[in-house]
Amino acid sequence: MPLMTGRSDLPVVVDVEEGVTALPDEFAFIRRHFLALAGPGALGLTDDAAVFTPPAGRELVIAVDAMVEGVHFLPDDPPETIGRKLLRANLSDMAAMGARPSGWLLTLACPDRAAEPRFNEAWFAAFAGGLAEDQRLFGLSLLGGDTTSTRGPLVLSLTIVGDVVPGRALRRNGARDGDGLWVTGTIGDGALGLKVLLGELADRDGWLAGRYRLPSPRLGPDLAGIAHAAMDVSDGLVQDAGHLARESGLGVVIEADAVPLSAAARALVTGRDDLLAVCLTGGDDYELLLAVPDDEAAALQACCAAAGVLVTRIGRFGAERAGVRVCRADGAVFPLARTGWSHF
Amino acid sequence: MPLMTGRSDLPVVVDVEEGVTALPDEFAFIRRHFLALAGPGALGLTDDAAVFTPPAGRELVIAVDAMVEGVHFLPDDPPETIGRKLLRANLSDMAAMGARPSGWLLTLACPDRAAEPRFNEAWFAAFAGGLAEDQRLFGLSLLGGDTTSTRGPLVLSLTIVGDVVPGRALRRNGARDGDGLWVTGTIGDGALGLKVLLGELADRDGWLAGRYRLPSPRLGPDLAGIAHAAMDVSDGLVQDAGHLARESGLGVVIEADAVPLSAAARALVTGRDDLLAVCLTGGDDYELLLAVPDDEAAALQACCAAAGVLVTRIGRFGAERAGVRVCRADGAVFPLARTGWSHF
Repeated sequence: MPLMTGRSDLPVVVDVEEGVTALPDEFAFIRRHFLALAGPGALGLTDDAAVFTPPAGRELVIAVDAMVEGVHFLPDDPPETIGRKLLRANLSDMAAMGARPSGWLLTLACPDRAAEPRFNEAWFAAFAGGLAEDQRLFGLSLLGGDTTSTRGPLVLSLTIVGDVVPGRALRRNGARDGDGLWVTGTIGDGALGLKVLLGELADRDGWLAGRYRLPSPRLGPDLAGIAHAAMDVSDGLVQDAGHLARESGLGVVIEADAVPLSAAARALVTGRDDLLAVCLTGGDDYELLLAVPDDEAAALQACCAAAGVLVTRIGRFGAERAGVRVCRADGAVFPLARTGWSHF
Repeated sequence: MPLMTGRSDLPVVVDVEEGVTALPDEFAFIRRHFLALAGPGALGLTDDAAVFTPPAGRELVIAVDAMVEGVHFLPDDPPETIGRKLLRANLSDMAAMGARPSGWLLTLACPDRAAEPRFNEAWFAAFAGGLAEDQRLFGLSLLGGDTTSTRGPLVLSLTIVGDVVPGRALRRNGARDGDGLWVTGTIGDGALGLKVLLGELADRDGWLAGRYRLPSPRLGPDLAGIAHAAMDVSDGLVQDAGHLARESGLGVVIEADAVPLSAAARALVTGRDDLLAVCLTGGDDYELLLAVPDDEAAALQACCAAAGVLVTRIGRFGAERAGVRVCRADGAVFPLARTGWSHF
């Protein structure tokens, strides 16, 4: 029973005396845009919950991530990519656990559509269409969700469900003294892409903005038995490496010049240590950070190559001292004013 | 990598060159307020996802509900009850499916705490304390979550996980011609309670406001094998009865005067059909609506009595005509301007 006035306050079904048969707007909206995405467990999105049989002999893995307009995406980002970015951020969490994703649920707190006309039917059709494309691409299906109104910006929260062989989930706390610190893909594209979209930097071919809007979750490589520890980079490489180290009771040294950059990032960063710092701390990478012992390095490279995923050693864990140290090739400390993002 | 400026834009860990060891504020916040609530699957709330073994021989049930300040709860509601209301709304979904809840995840999009000083440590301690009390009461534990900042009002989204005997989940689409329409507890307390809190009505003893802030999920009665269909009343009795009927391909008649009211509601509603209409359509009840054949009525009453839950027959499903009809004791149609809430 919302307090919200506006469209929600209108009679949702007019002809009560003659018998209510029409769907209220909210339910018709869900049916129109999301029913095509629903998997069998979703029960047609008409029940109070989804019901599914967990895969036999597997552990379940579950995570949730929220995104807020003006915080995690830009108001003028295309609706096609907004939902996909959130889904991919969650898929990246599944990749970081070594899990296989199977389903997702979405809550959508939407500004009143009368007051914010850009949230029209075409916007939601594109939003849901992007999600439909990604769930085909990554092989999962919608289980359920909730829609509500808000006086504030669009807030999305996505829950993802997957599974893993029992005992094989990749944790953050398994790094060992001497393990190499490895990272997939390239770092900094998302952070630089945001600066491009804000007009602070130029991007020759749209690569960086594309990576900001559509990260690539690294679900391909089967890292169980190879990586001692894993997580994904969302809040900034330096800060997130610090989490891996702390949870494992170790420190870590990152070689700033070894951090893999895309050609587009390299073109901007060369000679600009301030922009290299943006790459190292900006976040929104959704790449995997891995602790891998040297005798598994070849296996790591082989399984990533088989999945078409670049993987690069960028540092080393050590027991001598806690924390993160970021160094240049000559061993000098690379100066950073901050390590990553905190929302509080 | 949020765009948000403000506290989030400050260096989160200052002493980078000397090695980062401190926790960023956001992670310290989570540890401070939520770690005590975390169950074993939550992995100390430090990993990218939760991992748990699904109970053998059961189906999993999963649902998500969001609540927005100023829409689902009032800005001056006590922080102790805000999280509990959302948890209980989700527990009510589990009850409606006949499922046993086991775990939950929470996302919290919070106004910048520098700009909104009421969201201070004491507020969050009370918020988490209320949730801790309820998860003890209802026997489940926190699996994970996400915190972020927003420029808008507080937005909470809660995912709940439970399980059920395979094939025994209660659905909305199982009502049959001639089934009685039954409801647990009392209807309208939440809707009247909101009016009390808005100063529009007087409440002698705080019962109605209490029911608005803390609904009672009806997890007790074991309804499998008794009810043909079930759902919980969140958007309004009339509208939600319409969902049960529509999903079952039937119509339903509700006897307005048979709808159970609490003593506090009865005192206000007597002689005020406008307030009876509020009860029938206001929502926020979190009671169960059930389709039960007459030959299971005694079993229904017995299992509800055993669980200490009132249950009342308030109408009947029929195949003659679609939709909902709301009637007085003399058969006359009870006039309603709307049936319940829609957020779009």
